[in-house]
Amino acid sequence: MIGARIPERAMKAMAGRADQSMPVGNEGAGTVVKAGSSAAAQALLGKKVAIIGGAMYAQYRCIDASQCLVLPADATAADGASCFVNPLTALGMVETMKRESHQALVHTAAASNLGQMLNRICLKDGIALVNIVRKSEQAALLREQGAKFVCDTGSPRFADELSDALAKTGATIAFDAVGGGKLASQILSGMEAAINRNAKEYSRYGSAVHKQVYLYGMLDTGPTELVRNFGMAWGVGGWLLFPFLQKIGPAAAQQLRERVAAELKTTFASRYTRTVSLAEALTPQAIAAYAQRATGAKFLIDPSRG
Amino acid sequence: MIGARIPERAMKAMAGRADQSMPVGNEGAGTVVKAGSSAAAQALLGKKVAIIGGAMYAQYRCIDASQCLVLPADATAADGASCFVNPLTALGMVETMKRESHQALVHTAAASNLGQMLNRICLKDGIALVNIVRKSEQAALLREQGAKFVCDTGSPRFADELSDALAKTGATIAFDAVGGGKLASQILSGMEAAINRNAKEYSRYGSAVHKQVYLYGMLDTGPTELVRNFGMAWGVGGWLLFPFLQKIGPAAAQQLRERVAAELKTTFASRYTRTVSLAEALTPQAIAAYAQRATGAKFLIDPSRG
Repeated sequence: MIGARIPERAMKAMAGRADQSMPVGNEGAGTVVKAGSSAAAQALLGKKVAIIGGAMYAQYRCIDASQCLVLPADATAADGASCFVNPLTALGMVETMKRESHQALVHTAAASNLGQMLNRICLKDGIALVNIVRKSEQAALLREQGAKFVCDTGSPRFADELSDALAKTGATIAFDAVGGGKLASQILSGMEAAINRNAKEYSRYGSAVHKQVYLYGMLDTGPTELVRNFGMAWGVGGWLLFPFLQKIGPAAAQQLRERVAAELKTTFASRYTRTVSLAEALTPQAIAAYAQRATGAKFLIDPSRG
Repeated sequence: MIGARIPERAMKAMAGRADQSMPVGNEGAGTVVKAGSSAAAQALLGKKVAIIGGAMYAQYRCIDASQCLVLPADATAADGASCFVNPLTALGMVETMKRESHQALVHTAAASNLGQMLNRICLKDGIALVNIVRKSEQAALLREQGAKFVCDTGSPRFADELSDALAKTGATIAFDAVGGGKLASQILSGMEAAINRNAKEYSRYGSAVHKQVYLYGMLDTGPTELVRNFGMAWGVGGWLLFPFLQKIGPAAAQQLRERVAAELKTTFASRYTRTVSLAEALTPQAIAAYAQRATGAKFLIDPSRG
């Protein structure tokens, strides 16, 4: 058993789950060993499938046949183990950009597994992407993978470099994994500065172009600080995969899933640095390692290990 | 001539207007003394009209006949002097609430001229409104005018009183005139707490109900601080009257204007504490008075005064 102290300010939001034992694990993949009597279920017997639906950190999981995504013949269970959340989130960002009428996008924590995936999607689809990272090694990694616009918050000229990249791409929507601090605000300021480079007339209310930042992660759990020097046409909000999929409806969501299956070994390939059993995942050493949420350190949980 | 120092952090947004002489004044009202040859223009001769379109702090203003709102026969120019921005903003808040599928709303700086107007609209239309004020006198003022839900940020129990009012009204959209500080964040937290009172199941991502705060003013020009303890279904953004009117289109906007004209002496009545000439408006004493943006101290500029 592992215990940990929850910070006081987070306890209010946790109140509803006190004293509850809650199963965890968003997604996983494996071989179908038993199936119901329906033709659809029977057809899956012996197939490798990926599934999503919670309570996935387990050796066996019973789920509706319609929820299974059959993996390509040459894919392993590990290939499919994280083929929903990250791939669909990356595709969901591009889809949100299009549906909300933006022409290019910004991503923070851009060297993450998800960020690299988004970079591959954008390169393939010809969409301009401004990648924001914290370190020069991360910038180099993305550039090696073909990224054209990479801004490093560690650079002394970050603000100017960001507004240059925003002016060149015309990006007016950002997806931010950091959440806390001033980064979202800096992105909105950079967008407004980029837009005003081409403005013909001063407007006291700022540009009329809508600028949007969605916070989809909480790498920094501290407060988000918005220094409102970016006019009045802006929005900041939370973004989550499941409400997004619900909003676009089952047909559009299925199209995204099919693209993931088709490009599982290329665009949507995940790389893991270590594989652990369920028991190992709860050792203090393993927790200390993955709690860092460090770039390039993604763990695969293999519940079939003893 | 009056000079004033602009804070350094505001100068970036001002760069585009340096060395420009800019006419001011959003709206005004007066008698039509000269008109073009068209029948529509001629029909306005001698009538009292209200107009909006900038450069209104002047004795005469030439504007398209179609832009004139003819005032009711018993209205004075003073009655119509501010019949666009505040009335349409208040109506725009209610309209935004409906269009974005919320059932009740929150307003801050609620004892303002605009706030009292919004309170009258909501009472008349049977819409639940949570009024947030800073002082007990302001709370008393609104209660005297029939307001049912008034929360005072000065109260030691503000957070609980707010979440009570939010639970009773079901308000999930707020219009905030303050902008800076933690108020927007406190409203989102209060909404989430109110929603979770009735939640049957704990969700680690917070409630699925979208909570929205629009910042339409800047009484506090400091940073907006969001302590993100209200789940992932939320948005904060700028809100301005003119983009809103453009979005709803000319027919819907005209309906709102007609309601204002019909209820000019009741729902949309403005009260002024002082009338000044254009020259008086630029005296240091007058500036010191209206720069306080205090509740119940609204100035009327009368350019016909010498």
